[in-house]
Amino acid sequence: MDDSSAISSALAAARAYRTTQGPRILRDFAEWLALPNIAGDSLAIQANAAYLAAQMERRGIDTELWQIAGMPPVVFGERRVPGADTTLLFYAHYDGQPAEAVEWTAPPWTPTLFSNAIPQGGQPIPFPADGAPIDPNSRIYARSASDDKAPFTAILTALDALEAAGLAPRVNLKFFFDGEEETGSPTLGDYLAAHRDRLAADILLICDGPVHQNRQPQLFFGARGFTGFTVTVYGPTRHLHSGHYGNWAPNPGLLLAHMLAGMKAPDGRVLIEDFYEGVTPLNAIEQAAIDALPDFDGSLRAELGLAETEAGNARLDQRIQQPSLNIRGIQCGIADGRILNMIPSVARASVDIRLVKGLDPDVMIERVRAHLRRDGWHLVDAEPDAATRSRHPKIARLGLDPSFPAVRTDMTLPIVQALVRTVRAACDGPVALLPTLGGSLPLYHFVDHLGLPVVGVPIANHDNNQHGPDENLRIANLWYGIDLFAAIIHGAGPAHQN
Amino acid sequence: MDDSSAISSALAAARAYRTTQGPRILRDFAEWLALPNIAGDSLAIQANAAYLAAQMERRGIDTELWQIAGMPPVVFGERRVPGADTTLLFYAHYDGQPAEAVEWTAPPWTPTLFSNAIPQGGQPIPFPADGAPIDPNSRIYARSASDDKAPFTAILTALDALEAAGLAPRVNLKFFFDGEEETGSPTLGDYLAAHRDRLAADILLICDGPVHQNRQPQLFFGARGFTGFTVTVYGPTRHLHSGHYGNWAPNPGLLLAHMLAGMKAPDGRVLIEDFYEGVTPLNAIEQAAIDALPDFDGSLRAELGLAETEAGNARLDQRIQQPSLNIRGIQCGIADGRILNMIPSVARASVDIRLVKGLDPDVMIERVRAHLRRDGWHLVDAEPDAATRSRHPKIARLGLDPSFPAVRTDMTLPIVQALVRTVRAACDGPVALLPTLGGSLPLYHFVDHLGLPVVGVPIANHDNNQHGPDENLRIANLWYGIDLFAAIIHGAGPAHQN
Repeated sequence: MDDSSAISSALAAARAYRTTQGPRILRDFAEWLALPNIAGDSLAIQANAAYLAAQMERRGIDTELWQIAGMPPVVFGERRVPGADTTLLFYAHYDGQPAEAVEWTAPPWTPTLFSNAIPQGGQPIPFPADGAPIDPNSRIYARSASDDKAPFTAILTALDALEAAGLAPRVNLKFFFDGEEETGSPTLGDYLAAHRDRLAADILLICDGPVHQNRQPQLFFGARGFTGFTVTVYGPTRHLHSGHYGNWAPNPGLLLAHMLAGMKAPDGRVLIEDFYEGVTPLNAIEQAAIDALPDFDGSLRAELGLAETEAGNARLDQRIQQPSLNIRGIQCGIADGRILNMIPSVARASVDIRLVKGLDPDVMIERVRAHLRRDGWHLVDAEPDAATRSRHPKIARLGLDPSFPAVRTDMTLPIVQALVRTVRAACDGPVALLPTLGGSLPLYHFVDHLGLPVVGVPIANHDNNQHGPDENLRIANLWYGIDLFAAIIHGAGPAHQN
Repeated sequence: MDDSSAISSALAAARAYRTTQGPRILRDFAEWLALPNIAGDSLAIQANAAYLAAQMERRGIDTELWQIAGMPPVVFGERRVPGADTTLLFYAHYDGQPAEAVEWTAPPWTPTLFSNAIPQGGQPIPFPADGAPIDPNSRIYARSASDDKAPFTAILTALDALEAAGLAPRVNLKFFFDGEEETGSPTLGDYLAAHRDRLAADILLICDGPVHQNRQPQLFFGARGFTGFTVTVYGPTRHLHSGHYGNWAPNPGLLLAHMLAGMKAPDGRVLIEDFYEGVTPLNAIEQAAIDALPDFDGSLRAELGLAETEAGNARLDQRIQQPSLNIRGIQCGIADGRILNMIPSVARASVDIRLVKGLDPDVMIERVRAHLRRDGWHLVDAEPDAATRSRHPKIARLGLDPSFPAVRTDMTLPIVQALVRTVRAACDGPVALLPTLGGSLPLYHFVDHLGLPVVGVPIANHDNNQHGPDENLRIANLWYGIDLFAAIIHGAGPAHQN
C-alpha cells in the first residue's frame, strides 16, 4: 500500500466513524472536560491523570504514571507496531488555566454545547442524541476545551476509527502527557532526563495551540520562549485621602504608569535597552514559509474590533517571530466606578515576555533590571523596610515567573518534510507552516534531553479564548483533529522518510 | 461673665464630664458607629437619620427630618437661647464611604477599641467599664469613626457636659446634618434653597476633616473643589492569548499607562495644558497663615515611609493650595500573582481632580478632554460600536464624577476673627489656620444659597485612614472635640464679635 492510499483509507475511516459516532464522541469529550484541572490543584490533576490512563488502556496503549513526589504525574503510553521502524512521540498537557466562573457564560467545568460562537449569537443547545446531525460550527465551551484537552480526544478517537475500519497503525506510538504545562513545567526536564530511553523516538509531535487564524491547518516548527514578572511599586505605607495629601504624596499608580510607558512605546516597540539584541534572524526557508502565509490581518482586526494604524503595518505572522513584552494586568486602588478618593499605597503590574531563538531568559530579565535601574528604580526582592523606603523615592519589587528559551526546528529534516507531506495530503487546501508559534511551549526540554526534532500539530480554532473566560472548541476543529491523527498514525510510514 | 471666664467654665465642665462619663461616652459612640451608613444605601441612611434625630431631641434640640423624595434626609435641629443675638449653624454628615471588610483588621461596622494605632502595635482591647481609666492614645476603629460621625458625638456630649454643670448655651444653635456628602451632595443645594429662612445664621461651622498632621488644633477657611472621572480604554473585543497575539494586538493597559504618564510628570506636575490657568493667588494674610504653620513634612514622610525628593521640596500645606490630579485606581487584566498570559480587552483608571479658588469644574474637565484629543484619543460617552472601533486606534470613554468648585472665606471678617479667638482660648497651644483644606467639601452651596462665611472646625486625627480600610478616631481627638464645642457653645457669645 502506498502512502497516499494509506492516507486516503485512514481519512475515510475517520470520517465514517465520526459521522456515525459523533454524538457519542461529543459526550465522551464533555465527560473529560467536566474534570476540573486547574494547574497546581494536586487532587484534581491526579484525577485527570487516572481518567486519561484508563482511556488509553482501553485503546491498547501500555500506560504508566510517572510521578516525581509532590509533582503532577506524567501519563506515559506506548503502542508498538510490529515491523514499524518509525516512532512518533506525542506531547499534550492535561492541566488547565485557572478560571473565574463569574466571567464565563456557562460554568468552566460544566461543558456546554453552543449553536455557534457566543459573540456570533451562539445559544446553548442540548448535546445531540445518537444519530442526530451535528453542526460543525457549533462549539463546546469549557476550560481546556482547546488548551489542551482536545488533542487527547482526537488521538484516541482516531485510534477507535482505525480500529473500527480494520486499519492498524503503521508507526510506533509513544505518548507523553504533561500535567504541569500551565505552571511552566518546572519538572518536565527531570521527567525527560529520568526516562530518556523510554522516550526514544524519531520526532516529537506537540499537540497544542491553535490552527491558523484563517482556519487553515497549521504546523509550527518551534515556539517562543517565556519569561515574565510581577512588579510592585510602593507609595505611602497606608492609603491616603487624595484631598488632604493629593499633590504632595507620590502616587504609586502614576509611578507605575511612567514605568510601563517607559518600557514600551505606544506603537509596540519595546524600549528596554538591547531588548532585540541577539535575536537569530529567520533563514530563507523560514522567511519563505512566512511569506507564503495568507494575509488575514485585515479580517482579524475586524473580528477583534481593532483599527489599522500606521505603526501596525507589520503582519502578525511576522511580528510573532520577534520577542514581545505584554502587560497582563495592572492593579492599583479602586477603578470599578466606585468613588473612593484615595491615594493607593501600592500598585502592581504583571508582564510577560515572549522570547525567540537567540534570547536567553535570564539575560532578558537582567536587561529589564538594568533598564529599571537606569530609570532610577531601586529594586528589591522583598517588602521594603522603613530604612529602604526613606532612602529611595522609587522602589520596585520584582517577582519572577518560571522561564524557558525558544526553540526553532530545522524545517529541512527528512522526517519533518515527511510529516509536512502527510499533513498536506490529509488536508483539502493549503497548510500554513509557521517557523515559530506565537505562544510559548517548553520545547527546549525535548531538544536538550531527547535531541528530537519538534513539530507542532495544533487542531484548535484560533478564536478559542484560550487562557480567558469562555474557552471553547469548534466542533469542526475536533473533526479535523480526528482526521489528521488518523492520517498520521496510519499514513506516516517509513516511505515518507525518503 | 466675660468671655475668657465663660470659656474656662465650659472647658472645666467638659473635662469633668468626660473624666467621669468617659466609658459611657465611648459606648454611646460605638453604638452610633455600629449603624452601617454607606452613602447611597437608602435604608441604612434613613436608620442613621432617625437615630441621630432621637439623640438630638434628648438634648432639647427641636428636630426635623427634611426629605426630598428618593434622597437622603437632612436632619435639621434648632435650639434657641433667650437673649442670644448670635446664631451658629453646624454642618456635619452622617453618611460614610463604602468599605471592603476583607481589607479591615476589624469589621468596619463592628466598632473596636485598640490600645493604640494598629501600625504602632495597637491591639484590640475591651471597652472600659464605668470608672475605669481611658488611654487617650487608644483608638476606635470603624467606618466613619472620623469621617464624619465623631463631631455628632462631640457636640451632643458637649451639650450634656454643659447641662451637667448648669451652664447654658450663650448662642443660638442650628444644625444641618447631611446624608449624601460622600456621593457629592447632589441635592444639598436644593435643600438649602428650600429652607433658606430656617437656616439663617451668622456663620457656618463645618465639622468635618482632620486636625493638623502635627496634632495641632486647626481651623480651615475653605476647601478644595472637586471633579473626577473614570476612563476606559479599549483593546481587542476579547481577551487574547499574549503569545499568539503579543506584539501585534494593541494592549489597553499600555495605552492607558501612556495616557496617565502623559497627564502628570513623575514629580507631580500636571501636564494637562492650562491646568493651573486661572488659580486665584493667595493674599498676604493667607500666605502668612501658611508660613506660620509648623513644618512637619519630614516627620510625615517618615510616618508614611516616603523618601525626600528634590521635586518634593514644596511643603504639603503650600501644595494643597494648588489644584491636583490623583490616580485613585487602575484596573486591567490580572495582576494578583496568578499567571494568566493574556492581552486584556479593556483597561480602566479612576482619577480625581482637586480644585482651588478660581477654577471651574466644567472648564477643568474640558481641559482634560482637549488634552486627550490632542494626544490622539477619540472620546466616547458609551461603549464604542464596531464602526467606531474600526476607525479609531485609541478610544477612551469618560464617565464623570459629580463636581463642585472650591471656596475660600475671608479670614478678616469680625465673626471669623471672634471664632479664631475662642478656639485659641480653648486650646493650650497654637492653632493652625489653613486658608484651604486639602479635602473637598461642597461649601459653595452654603455661600451661594445662604451667603454665610464658612469656617471648618475639624477634630479628627490626621492619621485616621479616612476613606480607606481601618478608619479610626484617636480618643484624645474625641476629648478635644468635646472641649472645643463646649467652649464654642458656651463661650462664643456676642462679645466675641467686637
